[in-house]
Amino acid sequence: MEEVEVAPPGRLEVRVKLLFTSICHTDLSFLKGENELQSKFPRILGHEAAGVVESVGEGVEDLAAGDHVVPIFNGECGACAYCESDKTNLCGTYRVNPFKSTMASDGGTRFSVVDGTGERRPVYHFLNTSTFAEYTVLDAACAVKVHPKAPLDKMCLLSCGISTGVGAAWNTANINTGSTVAVFGLGAVGLAVAEGARLRGAARIIGIDINSEKFTKGKEMGVTDFIDSKACDKPVHEVIREMTDGGVDCSFECTGINDVLREAFLSTHDGWGLTVILGIHATPKMMPLHPMELFDGRRITGCVFGDFKGKSQLPDLVDKFMNGRLNLNFDGFITHNMSFSDINKAFQLLEEGKSLRSVLHF
Amino acid sequence: MEEVEVAPPGRLEVRVKLLFTSICHTDLSFLKGENELQSKFPRILGHEAAGVVESVGEGVEDLAAGDHVVPIFNGECGACAYCESDKTNLCGTYRVNPFKSTMASDGGTRFSVVDGTGERRPVYHFLNTSTFAEYTVLDAACAVKVHPKAPLDKMCLLSCGISTGVGAAWNTANINTGSTVAVFGLGAVGLAVAEGARLRGAARIIGIDINSEKFTKGKEMGVTDFIDSKACDKPVHEVIREMTDGGVDCSFECTGINDVLREAFLSTHDGWGLTVILGIHATPKMMPLHPMELFDGRRITGCVFGDFKGKSQLPDLVDKFMNGRLNLNFDGFITHNMSFSDINKAFQLLEEGKSLRSVLHF
Repeated sequence: MEEVEVAPPGRLEVRVKLLFTSICHTDLSFLKGENELQSKFPRILGHEAAGVVESVGEGVEDLAAGDHVVPIFNGECGACAYCESDKTNLCGTYRVNPFKSTMASDGGTRFSVVDGTGERRPVYHFLNTSTFAEYTVLDAACAVKVHPKAPLDKMCLLSCGISTGVGAAWNTANINTGSTVAVFGLGAVGLAVAEGARLRGAARIIGIDINSEKFTKGKEMGVTDFIDSKACDKPVHEVIREMTDGGVDCSFECTGINDVLREAFLSTHDGWGLTVILGIHATPKMMPLHPMELFDGRRITGCVFGDFKGKSQLPDLVDKFMNGRLNLNFDGFITHNMSFSDINKAFQLLEEGKSLRSVLHF
Repeated sequence: MEEVEVAPPGRLEVRVKLLFTSICHTDLSFLKGENELQSKFPRILGHEAAGVVESVGEGVEDLAAGDHVVPIFNGECGACAYCESDKTNLCGTYRVNPFKSTMASDGGTRFSVVDGTGERRPVYHFLNTSTFAEYTVLDAACAVKVHPKAPLDKMCLLSCGISTGVGAAWNTANINTGSTVAVFGLGAVGLAVAEGARLRGAARIIGIDINSEKFTKGKEMGVTDFIDSKACDKPVHEVIREMTDGGVDCSFECTGINDVLREAFLSTHDGWGLTVILGIHATPKMMPLHPMELFDGRRITGCVFGDFKGKSQLPDLVDKFMNGRLNLNFDGFITHNMSFSDINKAFQLLEEGKSLRSVLHF
């Protein structure tokens, strides 16, 4: 913990007083240096949070001081060819970019510290958000205004985990009543997929993990069947095909492991199965599929931020939740609440698989 | 050439007198043994043809003697869960299956010869069709009844090449007015993709080949731009991205070469690009993509028989052609007409890249 100066927002930026932040596996991976990406240090990690706009920079029209906002790492300018396309949620300017460490408007940082020699040094940004701080500066394109009465301790999960999983089920896979689903990896994103599938009326939601302790939580969260892949005497996809008369309609890869990706792909029904990749496959291995395997009608696709256009779509989701028209179980994901000063403890819980989300209170 | 006895059709089968057949690269690959598939010999190759129903077996209700038909290697029973799904054209029983060499109804063959010892020996079937014969027996699910006045010498191209390419553009990629398209490999299937894209009003159709002689024919067939990939001083996908402000909307891989598949994938626009695999990738190499590359919004899919449900959709296509409402340039694909007895010459022309389709007359 140290004192950092947070500069006022620049053009098209907002400065936000954060009230809550939570931790995602991607923060842990960056902390441990697992992603071999050209990275600038020092930087402020964190990308799941919620807070209140403190001030707005020049040119910001859709946000004002006092607005309640959720930062999003995959922004939406609303005006580029990508934002105007209904086929993608990757903004031309503000899309997720792990290499980016400065602000788009001037290439500078809004964080700085004075070092031992008395010189002011930049502190770099992370994933358009940098939420492990009491104040942060966001591009307005990366701040979603939400219902003023929405509980921000829950809303912070919309920054990444819940939106990614629920959106994958709703937007990417278009799960319908009666669909069968397999979720590989029952962390927060995997359970958010299950939650999204449950809300759409999926008939069966099969959870696969190597840690059978996750099944207890999974059962609370709507997962209907469990497979402990370590206990299987044959490939998991064969088990799933037998359980489901040929395979599930959709599978979701939430582990980032290449062999699991292949099992997820083969576990869907030929002719119409879809596999959605959500896990971060950092190791540069090729896809474990032969081109001809796509001729059986199984499809595979990536998914960023649940294919939500954040600023366009999340406010409506929050409104529905507030009006009681969306029974999204935010609480089920929050296994711990603690002070921001306990952040290292929260990281430890995540690494040990003992938490889904720890919400840190500033 | 030898005498083969063709038995009467069994249950749900029809016997067809073929009038025309043409040759596709898949016939050539099987002739040369390029596909390392467990294969039964002797067998009758050929899968593009047109003819007249000579007799029908028990239980056949939708076909009668005298009907004009086009055999299809990817059949449609019309009643299984696959046929009832609008997401696939892979019938549960009669889908394309290169391993299949006998009839579905009884596991037997309808072709036989008497060998030197006087014993009758089976001759095996190929791709549900076996059209290099004056008569063949088809499952009724693999025979499409067409308009009685449709010119059968043209219609035979609907058995494979034209349906596959045109359908990939229409059904798989849903090319629209103004779409930009790249076609890798300008054989008959690649040109059929271009034809399908042209008919849908694509703005640009970029053809890529290593044989620049193919550009002359391509220009006649609606290809608007050409890239000789051998003459490029940088990767083809970079050339295409520069030509198209970031990439084409859709690319089509019609070569079966893994490195070309990667170029085709990278040549589409991020956010919404789609690559359709049409080429047969026989060598068991993995997909030349990293899972994370799917996170840029580029998609990739396989396509069998242009995603046409043959019996449901092709008769309407033929009717439109006959009524002048579909300006499909069948003639452009027919580079040679010859007697069936010249089949070996036709194979040679195909292998040397000197023909698109040779139509053989019985």
